[in-house]
Amino acid sequence: MDKIQRVGSLASVKRLPAYLRLLMQIKEVGRDIVSSNYIAEKLKLDAIQVRKDLATTGIEGKPKVGYQVSALINAIESFLGWDSNREAFLVGVGNLGSALLGYEGFEAHGMKIIAAFDTDEGKIGRQIHGKNVLPLDKLTDLARRMNIKMGIITVTADQAQHVANVMVAGGIEAIWNFAPVSLEVPEGIIAQNEDLSSGLAVLSVKTVRLLDS
Amino acid sequence: MDKIQRVGSLASVKRLPAYLRLLMQIKEVGRDIVSSNYIAEKLKLDAIQVRKDLATTGIEGKPKVGYQVSALINAIESFLGWDSNREAFLVGVGNLGSALLGYEGFEAHGMKIIAAFDTDEGKIGRQIHGKNVLPLDKLTDLARRMNIKMGIITVTADQAQHVANVMVAGGIEAIWNFAPVSLEVPEGIIAQNEDLSSGLAVLSVKTVRLLDS
Repeated sequence: MDKIQRVGSLASVKRLPAYLRLLMQIKEVGRDIVSSNYIAEKLKLDAIQVRKDLATTGIEGKPKVGYQVSALINAIESFLGWDSNREAFLVGVGNLGSALLGYEGFEAHGMKIIAAFDTDEGKIGRQIHGKNVLPLDKLTDLARRMNIKMGIITVTADQAQHVANVMVAGGIEAIWNFAPVSLEVPEGIIAQNEDLSSGLAVLSVKTVRLLDS
Repeated sequence: MDKIQRVGSLASVKRLPAYLRLLMQIKEVGRDIVSSNYIAEKLKLDAIQVRKDLATTGIEGKPKVGYQVSALINAIESFLGWDSNREAFLVGVGNLGSALLGYEGFEAHGMKIIAAFDTDEGKIGRQIHGKNVLPLDKLTDLARRMNIKMGIITVTADQAQHVANVMVAGGIEAIWNFAPVSLEVPEGIIAQNEDLSSGLAVLSVKTVRLLDS
């Protein structure tokens, strides 16, 4: 039971950014109240699921009325900690790293990438999307001095563990890992893998029937 | 019950690429048999969860013995359709699009991106990671002639729906969407959103307690 609960709420958490985006749009056009049915229709979800997902943030809608849009936005942002401002370092300024450096959504989500690191002499010293690219061997010291607690890894699989070690040595406590490899980190450190192959796996399973039949 | 089941198995599908990667490594060092306990330890999962996940592919391990590595690799690849070869078009050759064009993992996963499209005159005619960048207005015709069924969208949110329409007009049936917006597609067309904010939401929730306490 505990396990089912956990999976359920993790899925809810993953949907919260989509709710937040929709609510921002609704707020922009000046609407104060929104129903779970409307949200469900827009996001192609079940209305019961919507109410359950949103309840994880502590907010419940009024029956036959709906949710207060601003209150719901605040509740989601606060639940996710996106109303705070956490600074992060990114390591690996290839195509994916550059894409993340340029992604404007992160700052709205309480995460600010303040510097990038690489070992490539051709990249060090450059600016990418306004962020300086620094040598990797400066990371540990800088993270300690600037009290950085979040790190993003966008290097290749064979380099990722080394980068994680460097981050942990610098006091970084939460690692968002885009390299296709599981990281070994000390207890108390959070390492979350963002595996693009996982998305392809889901798409593949959904399409195997459609495309091969 | 149906809903819990669905979430559970979707989570299993998402973990299959990590199993596959580990099994490939095990095969490379010449091992024929692997236990669920070993897999669980390596991937930091529960052994019961591992057996449940792997059972979705139709393969069960032998008690006290384990799984045949090659048979398990074949079963996962076949379940995901990754033993086939599907061709895809990608639209939007920015940083993220370029990163995906250069990602070597996809071909091992049965998906080959064979051309990229953009509307930017500065990009059209160039080659990125060996793939030609063609004008977007050629997509519909080319997809029909080449019988392409998969499309990847890496444009900005405001362009994504237009690109999806172009893809659907070309007969594309499965769309992998990296733009942070929900797409409207006709019935029978699969549109899967790959939302980087979802991963950040999970990481944020996990770290709110750790970093803010």
